[in-house]
Amino acid sequence: MTYCVAMLLDTGLVFLSDSRTNAGVDQISTFRKTTVFQKPGDRVLVLQSSGNLAITQTAVSILRDAIEAGGSREGAPKMHLMNAPTMSEAARCVGDALRELHRRDASALKDFGVDFNASLILGGQIKGESPRLFSVYSAGNFIEATADTSYFQIGESKYGKPIIDRVLRRTSSLNEAVKCALVSMDSTIRSNLSVGLPLDLVIIKRDRYAVARHMSIDSDNDYFRGVRSRWSEALREAFSQLPDPGWLSAVARDTTD
Amino acid sequence: MTYCVAMLLDTGLVFLSDSRTNAGVDQISTFRKTTVFQKPGDRVLVLQSSGNLAITQTAVSILRDAIEAGGSREGAPKMHLMNAPTMSEAARCVGDALRELHRRDASALKDFGVDFNASLILGGQIKGESPRLFSVYSAGNFIEATADTSYFQIGESKYGKPIIDRVLRRTSSLNEAVKCALVSMDSTIRSNLSVGLPLDLVIIKRDRYAVARHMSIDSDNDYFRGVRSRWSEALREAFSQLPDPGWLSAVARDTTD
Repeated sequence: MTYCVAMLLDTGLVFLSDSRTNAGVDQISTFRKTTVFQKPGDRVLVLQSSGNLAITQTAVSILRDAIEAGGSREGAPKMHLMNAPTMSEAARCVGDALRELHRRDASALKDFGVDFNASLILGGQIKGESPRLFSVYSAGNFIEATADTSYFQIGESKYGKPIIDRVLRRTSSLNEAVKCALVSMDSTIRSNLSVGLPLDLVIIKRDRYAVARHMSIDSDNDYFRGVRSRWSEALREAFSQLPDPGWLSAVARDTTD
Repeated sequence: MTYCVAMLLDTGLVFLSDSRTNAGVDQISTFRKTTVFQKPGDRVLVLQSSGNLAITQTAVSILRDAIEAGGSREGAPKMHLMNAPTMSEAARCVGDALRELHRRDASALKDFGVDFNASLILGGQIKGESPRLFSVYSAGNFIEATADTSYFQIGESKYGKPIIDRVLRRTSSLNEAVKCALVSMDSTIRSNLSVGLPLDLVIIKRDRYAVARHMSIDSDNDYFRGVRSRWSEALREAFSQLPDPGWLSAVARDTTD
């Protein structure tokens, strides 16, 4: 499995993904799940992927090939991520790549009992638009983050969801979003063996049309180590500060049932 | 869906379950998922259930019927929850009930595309033994909590797992376990619509062979309301105390990728 989270804020976008791919615990590998497409000054797009790695890697290849062919090669789609006029057209390119792959591979996969399983997140900003964020499903259809939704997750999303629900708002700063994503990832890593370091972090500032920061975070990253230990400590401290229930006092041996 | 958690401690056991059952969001009902079997001074057993309600309710009926028949009715099993000499024999009774139900219902369910899906947690103490905790699968097989495992969860378990992993130990007090279970439940309720109030809480003290406390916790429960709001506040406070990453300073516009 994998865990990717992408956050859409008033001031930009934050993307964080782990890099562990596994087929059973004895076969764990590290692969990048984040791909950046940028034309500085014009657009920056970030694609995160979860699901069958053979499918998601090939989908990214199809998208890259389409850009290289530039609409000139016969049969290549004319629209691609680097010339799509809007983010929703770009999301459609991603969906189309999945659909092409489905036509090509799905029945062969089915013969081996493998589901066609791929989820992608596409976010970024194209000149003339605000930053936008999309979640693209295996079937190639997609949804967009609205004012009420400030984030999308794919993969092992549940462990890390509560902290995001509690602290993230559209108005959160990029720094807050990075912190929140790291805490969410930490909770996931602690509870699920199939999600692991290193992490890929991409930060995009609004109206810059370029990546502000793209870094790999490993166990030796001082900031992440600090966040992990401080957060654990703070949680245990906060937990110990909660008052005890009075339900086990002497008079409480009666039952309400 | 549902969420149940059961914790095994040096000093006893804590069980918490929600009571929402749903078949799509427009059809949400409240059902008890916790059943207590006790013979004060001899044994106390608590059963929590998750999965297809028609299956788990009938499994509980089979277990009750076996007790009422008391081994006297023809065809009724001689061993039941109230006379099993050990907790592992009791867990086997629960597994056998699921297997009987599987033989009876599984193929009819399959005709309607319904999986035979039921998970149960059985915990408690029988005189002569320490408190023990079991997780029983649909197939009727089961595992027991060992020294390394102080809890089991069934149903929507992932949202509420990180906080348990961080704070619960075998040596935690019953009060700490109750707090931890309520915080874990709160995280789950906030992130998942299909888990909801009221909650069923059962506390068992070691070597008492009776329920110490069995109560229903609804949104008007003062302690639970306090824990929810204090915990939210404490988390947001702890989060805001985490230092910001320095990755967005002026010099940080280079990328490492």
